[in-house]
Amino acid sequence: MPDVLIILGSPSDAEHARKCGDALAELGISFEAAVASAHRTPDRVAHMASRASELGFKVIIAMAGLSAALPGSVAAHTDLPVIGVPLSGGVMGGLDALLSVAQMPPGVPVASVGVDGARNAAILAARILALSNPEVRSALEAMKADNARKAVDGTNKLASIGLPTYRGDL
Amino acid sequence: MPDVLIILGSPSDAEHARKCGDALAELGISFEAAVASAHRTPDRVAHMASRASELGFKVIIAMAGLSAALPGSVAAHTDLPVIGVPLSGGVMGGLDALLSVAQMPPGVPVASVGVDGARNAAILAARILALSNPEVRSALEAMKADNARKAVDGTNKLASIGLPTYRGDL
Amino acid sequence: MPDVLIILGSPSDAEHARKCGDALAELGISFEAAVASAHRTPDRVAHMASRASELGFKVIIAMAGLSAALPGSVAAHTDLPVIGVPLSGGVMGGLDALLSVAQMPPGVPVASVGVDGARNAAILAARILALSNPEVRSALEAMKADNARKAVDGTNKLASIGLPTYRGDL
Amino acid sequence: MPDVLIILGSPSDAEHARKCGDALAELGISFEAAVASAHRTPDRVAHMASRASELGFKVIIAMAGLSAALPGSVAAHTDLPVIGVPLSGGVMGGLDALLSVAQMPPGVPVASVGVDGARNAAILAARILALSNPEVRSALEAMKADNARKAVDGTNKLASIGLPTYRGDL
Amino acid sequence: MPDVLIILGSPSDAEHARKCGDALAELGISFEAAVASAHRTPDRVAHMASRASELGFKVIIAMAGLSAALPGSVAAHTDLPVIGVPLSGGVMGGLDALLSVAQMPPGVPVASVGVDGARNAAILAARILALSNPEVRSALEAMKADNARKAVDGTNKLASIGLPTYRGDL
Amino acid sequence: MPDVLIILGSPSDAEHARKCGDALAELGISFEAAVASAHRTPDRVAHMASRASELGFKVIIAMAGLSAALPGSVAAHTDLPVIGVPLSGGVMGGLDALLSVAQMPPGVPVASVGVDGARNAAILAARILALSNPEVRSALEAMKADNARKAVDGTNKLASIGLPTYRGDL
Amino acid sequence: MPDVLIILGSPSDAEHARKCGDALAELGISFEAAVASAHRTPDRVAHMASRASELGFKVIIAMAGLSAALPGSVAAHTDLPVIGVPLSGGVMGGLDALLSVAQMPPGVPVASVGVDGARNAAILAARILALSNPEVRSALEAMKADNARKAVDGTNKLASIGLPTYRGDL
Amino acid sequence: MPDVLIILGSPSDAEHARKCGDALAELGISFEAAVASAHRTPDRVAHMASRASELGFKVIIAMAGLSAALPGSVAAHTDLPVIGVPLSGGVMGGLDALLSVAQMPPGVPVASVGVDGARNAAILAARILALSNPEVRSALEAMKADNARKAVDGTNKLASIGLPTYRGDL
Repeated sequence: MPDVLIILGSPSDAEHARKCGDALAELGISFEAAVASAHRTPDRVAHMASRASELGFKVIIAMAGLSAALPGSVAAHTDLPVIGVPLSGGVMGGLDALLSVAQMPPGVPVASVGVDGARNAAILAARILALSNPEVRSALEAMKADNARKAVDGTNKLASIGLPTYRGDL
Repeated sequence: MPDVLIILGSPSDAEHARKCGDALAELGISFEAAVASAHRTPDRVAHMASRASELGFKVIIAMAGLSAALPGSVAAHTDLPVIGVPLSGGVMGGLDALLSVAQMPPGVPVASVGVDGARNAAILAARILALSNPEVRSALEAMKADNARKAVDGTNKLASIGLPTYRGDL
Repeated sequence: MPDVLIILGSPSDAEHARKCGDALAELGISFEAAVASAHRTPDRVAHMASRASELGFKVIIAMAGLSAALPGSVAAHTDLPVIGVPLSGGVMGGLDALLSVAQMPPGVPVASVGVDGARNAAILAARILALSNPEVRSALEAMKADNARKAVDGTNKLASIGLPTYRGDL
Repeated sequence: MPDVLIILGSPSDAEHARKCGDALAELGISFEAAVASAHRTPDRVAHMASRASELGFKVIIAMAGLSAALPGSVAAHTDLPVIGVPLSGGVMGGLDALLSVAQMPPGVPVASVGVDGARNAAILAARILALSNPEVRSALEAMKADNARKAVDGTNKLASIGLPTYRGDL
Repeated sequence: MPDVLIILGSPSDAEHARKCGDALAELGISFEAAVASAHRTPDRVAHMASRASELGFKVIIAMAGLSAALPGSVAAHTDLPVIGVPLSGGVMGGLDALLSVAQMPPGVPVASVGVDGARNAAILAARILALSNPEVRSALEAMKADNARKAVDGTNKLASIGLPTYRGDL
Repeated sequence: MPDVLIILGSPSDAEHARKCGDALAELGISFEAAVASAHRTPDRVAHMASRASELGFKVIIAMAGLSAALPGSVAAHTDLPVIGVPLSGGVMGGLDALLSVAQMPPGVPVASVGVDGARNAAILAARILALSNPEVRSALEAMKADNARKAVDGTNKLASIGLPTYRGDL
Repeated sequence: MPDVLIILGSPSDAEHARKCGDALAELGISFEAAVASAHRTPDRVAHMASRASELGFKVIIAMAGLSAALPGSVAAHTDLPVIGVPLSGGVMGGLDALLSVAQMPPGVPVASVGVDGARNAAILAARILALSNPEVRSALEAMKADNARKAVDGTNKLASIGLPTYRGDL
Repeated sequence: MPDVLIILGSPSDAEHARKCGDALAELGISFEAAVASAHRTPDRVAHMASRASELGFKVIIAMAGLSAALPGSVAAHTDLPVIGVPLSGGVMGGLDALLSVAQMPPGVPVASVGVDGARNAAILAARILALSNPEVRSALEAMKADNARKAVDGTNKLASIGLPTYRGDL
C-alpha cells in the first residue's frame, strides 16, 4: 500500500505534484496523487482526508496557492501528519499562500515547507517515514551524500569559469 | 426568522461579533451567532453552512484571524453571499487574514471587508438585504444621513480646539 | 432591465470587464458596462452611482488598480451592494489596490474580491441576485456542480502525466 | 484670505490638523480647516475642492487613514496642488494609507508626505507658497537654521549621558 | 528514552519551550529541552543534532527568532524530522523568522509551524509519533474532541454576552 | 529661464526623464535635466540643489530607485518644492524606493508621487507653477478635459469588444 | 586617537548610541559620537565624513530610522567602512529603514546590520579593527566564549522552570 | 596570500561570484572562491570558516538566497568580518534572504549589502582592507573618481535622447 497521499488544489498545479512524486520515487516511497479543492469540492477533501489513515496512508502532502486553505482543511479531517506546500502565483510571490499554510490555529498544525517547495515536502515525508523504515533512511543518507558531493563539485564549476578557487585542505 | 448568520472562528473574537450585531440591530436586521472553526470543527461548519439557506438565512458573515479559512470554508458549502471579516492578531497586522479571505479561487467568492471590519460587514449585509426590504433601505439612508451629519459636526470640533475653520458656504 | 452595472476605472482594463461579463452571461444575468474614473471623471462616477438604483441596477461591480478609489467612490454614492475588484496593474502586484478597496472606513463598505478576481465578482453578484431569483440560483448550482466535476477530472490529468492516482472510493 | 485649506477625513484626526496648523502658524501662513469625508460626505468634498481656488486657497492639505481616498478625491476636483498625509490609524501601521495616497493614476497627482507627516505637509505647503511670498521664504530659512542648530545641540545631549563626543572642528 | 528534543536558540525563549512541553505532556510524550544557538554555539548545535538519532530521539523541535537559522542548522545535521518554530521577538512581528525557517533550499526541509506556534509544534510531533504509537494517537483523538467541545461551548459564551445564538440543530 | 530642474540618480533611468519631460512640454513648461547621484556625486547634488533657486528654477523633480536617497538629499539643500519619483527595480517592486522617498524626517519634506510616476511628477509641478502662471493653468484644464474625454470614449471601447454598455444619460 | 565615529541622525536615538558605545567599551575600543542629520545638516555630515579618515577614525557607525539616508550619505563622503544601523519607528517595524540602508547603488556600499542592531554594529567594527589590533581580537574571543557560556547556562534556566533537560554529553 | 574568501551557497550562483571577483580584481585584491552550503555541507562551512583566519584571509564574503543561512553560519565560526550578499533566487525577490542575512542575534554580526549586491560586497571588502593597504585605498579613490565621471557623462546621455540639459556651472 502507498505511504504518501498527494492532494493538489487544482490540476493546473500538476507539475508541482510531479516534482514531488519524482523525489518520492528517488527515495523509494510509494504514493498516490489526487486533485481535490478545499473550496470547490470540500466534501471530497473531507472524505479523502478522514479516510486516509484507514487506507494505510501515513503522510499527506497538500499543495495550494492563493488563500491556500487546502492543507489546513486536510489537517482538520485527519490526525496524520500533513505537509503543506504553499504555491506561488498570487499577490506577493506566494507570501499569501505561505501565511495561510503556516499560520494555523492551536490544535491543528500543518508542517509548512517553503513556497513551491514540492521537492522538500517529499524529503520531509521521507524523514517521517524513515523513523520506522530503514530503507527510506538509507535512501535519505544516500541523497544527502550526493547533495554534499554536488556542493563540493560546485567549486570546480567556479574554476571552470576562471575564478581562483580555495586551496585550503577540507 | 433571522436574516443573518454570524459565525466566529473562536469565542475569543466575541467582541467583534457584538460590534457586528450592534450594527445589525441599529439597522433593524435580525441575526443569530455561533462559534464554529474551519479547523477544529470542520463538520460543524459544513453542516451550518450547507443548511443555512433552508433555515432562511440570507447572508452569512464569517470572521477569523491568522490563516482565516473560515469564510472560504463557509462559502464552499453554500450559495448564499458570504461576507468575510479578516481579524488582526497574526503576523503583519491582519494582512495574513486579509489575503486568506480575499484571495479565493475562481468559483467560490467571499466578499471581504477590511481588517477588523465587523461593523462594515453588517452594513454590507444590510445593502444586500435592502434589495428586497424597504425598511432596511430606509434604515441605511438614515444611517448615512447621520454619518454625514457627524462629518459636518466634525468641523465644529476643530473649532473647539482652536483651529480656524472653513468659512465657505457648503 | 439589466441587474448589474460594471464600472471600469480605465478602458485599458477592458479584458477584466469581458471576463466578468462572460461569467454573468453564463449565469443568465444581464448587465451593462461603462468606463468612469474616480480621479479623471469624478462627477460621472457620482452621477452613475447615485442613479444606479433608480435605473434598476441591483449590484455594482467596480474595478480599478493602483490607488483604486473607484469602488469606494461608487459605494459613497449609492446604497446598492458594491463589489470591488482590485487590479494588478501597479508595480506591487495589486497589493496597493487590494488595500485601497478593502480598507474602507466604517459606514461605507465595499465587498472586495481577490486581485484580478473579475470572475469571482460576477459569481458574488449572482449569489446576491439569487436571493430573489430562482433561475440565478439554479445557474449557480449548475456552475458549482460543473466546477466539482472539473476538480474530479483533474485527477485524471495527473494520471495522464504518469502519476499513480488515488484509488480510494469517493 | 487664507492660503491653505486643511481637510480631515474624520474629526478623530483633529490632533494631526492641529500639528499641521501649528507648523503653518510658525511659518506665518494663514489657513482654514474642515472635516469632509470622501466616503461619508463625497459631495461636500467635491464642493469644497472645486471651489477652493476661486475662494483664494493656493494649497490643499488632505489627511486620511485606511483606504485614504480623500487626497485623491480632492485632487480630482481641483487643479491646485494637493498634499496628502497618510495616517496610521489602521492595523497596518499606515502602509495601506500610504499606498492609497501615493499610487495615483496618471493625470491626477497627489503630493504624498510620510505616514503621519502633518508637520512636513505644512512645510511642503510653505515651500510652494514661498515661490511667490518672500516672507514665507524667510520663515523657512529661519526654521531650517533652527533645525540645524538643534541637530548640533544634539551632540551635547550625547555628552550629557556620558558618551565621548566628536572633537573635530565643524 | 524521551521521543522529542526541544532546542531553543536563547534562554529568553524559555516560555515557548514550556508551552511546547506542556502540550507534549498532555499528549503523554516524553521530551528533553536544551539551549543551543546556531550562531553563538554552532558546534553544540552540530553535536546535539548529529547524535540525536542514536540517542533515541525521533523528532526535534527547534525554536528561534530574528534570522532564525537554528531549525535549518539542526536539519542540516540530522535526518530526523525537524519542526521549526519561528518566534516573534524581532521588530517585524516574526515575519523575518518565518521566512528564514520555511524557505529552506531543496534537500534539507524544515517543517515550519506558525509564528510562536510552540503548541502546534508539539501536536505536529505527536502526529508523527502516533504513526507508530497508538497511545499518542488516542491522546490526539481525545485532544481533538476536547477542542471541538470548546468550540461548541463558545456559542454559549456569545449567549452570555447577550447575542442571539444559532438555534439550528447541529 | 526654465522652471523645472529634473535630476536623475542614474543615466539608466533616462526613459523616466523623457516621460516627465514630454508631459512638461505638453503643458508648456520649460525644463532642464541632469544626472547626479546622492551617493556617487554627492557634492554635485549639493551644488545643483543649493544653486537651483538663484538660477531661477522653481520646482525640482528628483528620481531614484533602491535606497532612493536623491530626492531627500536635494530637499536638504534647497527650500524649493522637491517632487520625488520612486523608481521600481529593487526588492518589492519599488516599495523600498517609495518608503525612502516619502518617509522624510520632520523639517525636510519631499512630495512623493507613486512608483514610476514620472508623468504625475510633471503634472504636480504644473499645479504648483500654475499658481502664478495662467498659461500653465489653462494647459492643465485642457489636459484634464482631454483625460475626461478619453475616459468617456473608453465606454465605446467596451462596446467595440462586444459588451453591452451603459445606456443611462450622463 | 579614537578608532570609531558614531553618527546619529537624531538626538532622540541617543540610547542606541549608548548601547553601541557600551559594546565598544567592553571590547576596549575608543570612540566619539555626534549628531548629524543627512537631511537637516547635510553639510555637517559631508564635513564630518570626508574628514574622518584624516582625523584617524577607522570605522564609522551611522544610525537612522525612517528614510534612513544617513549611512549612505556618510558612505558617499568617505572611503572608510561605514556600518549602518537601521532603526525601528517607521511604518513596518523598521523594514523601511533596513531597505534604505542596505539597498545602496553599486559603488557605494554600506554594511547593514539588523534593525536596532547597535550592539552588533559595535562588534562588527571590532572584527574590522581586530585585523590589525591583537587586543581587540583577544577581546572578541573572550566575548565569544562568554556568549557560548551563557548559551550553555541557558539549559540550566530551563531546568529551573521545571523542564526535563538534555542529558546527552556535549 | 589572498585576502578575501568568497563562499557561495550553490554553484548556480557562480555569476554573482564572478561579478564580485571582477570588482576585487579591478581593485587589485586577491581572492579565492569556493562552494559550501550551510545546509548541505555544514561541516565544510564550519571547517573553512574556522580556518580562514590562520590561512591568512582577512575578509569573507558569503552569498546565499532563500533562507540564506550561509553568511550567519560563517560568522559563527570566525572572528573575521563577514560580508553577506542576499541573493534574489526565491519567489519573494530576495526579501527573504535580506531578512535572514541582516537580522542576526546580538554577538554575531554580518555586514549585509543589498540584494544581489555582489559588486558592493567587493567594494566594502576593499574599504576594510584599505585601512592597512594604501594601494587598495588608491584603487578605491580611482574607482570613485571614475564613478563620478560616469555620473557626469550621464547628463550627456540625456542630451543624446533630446532632452534639454542643465546649463549651470558645476
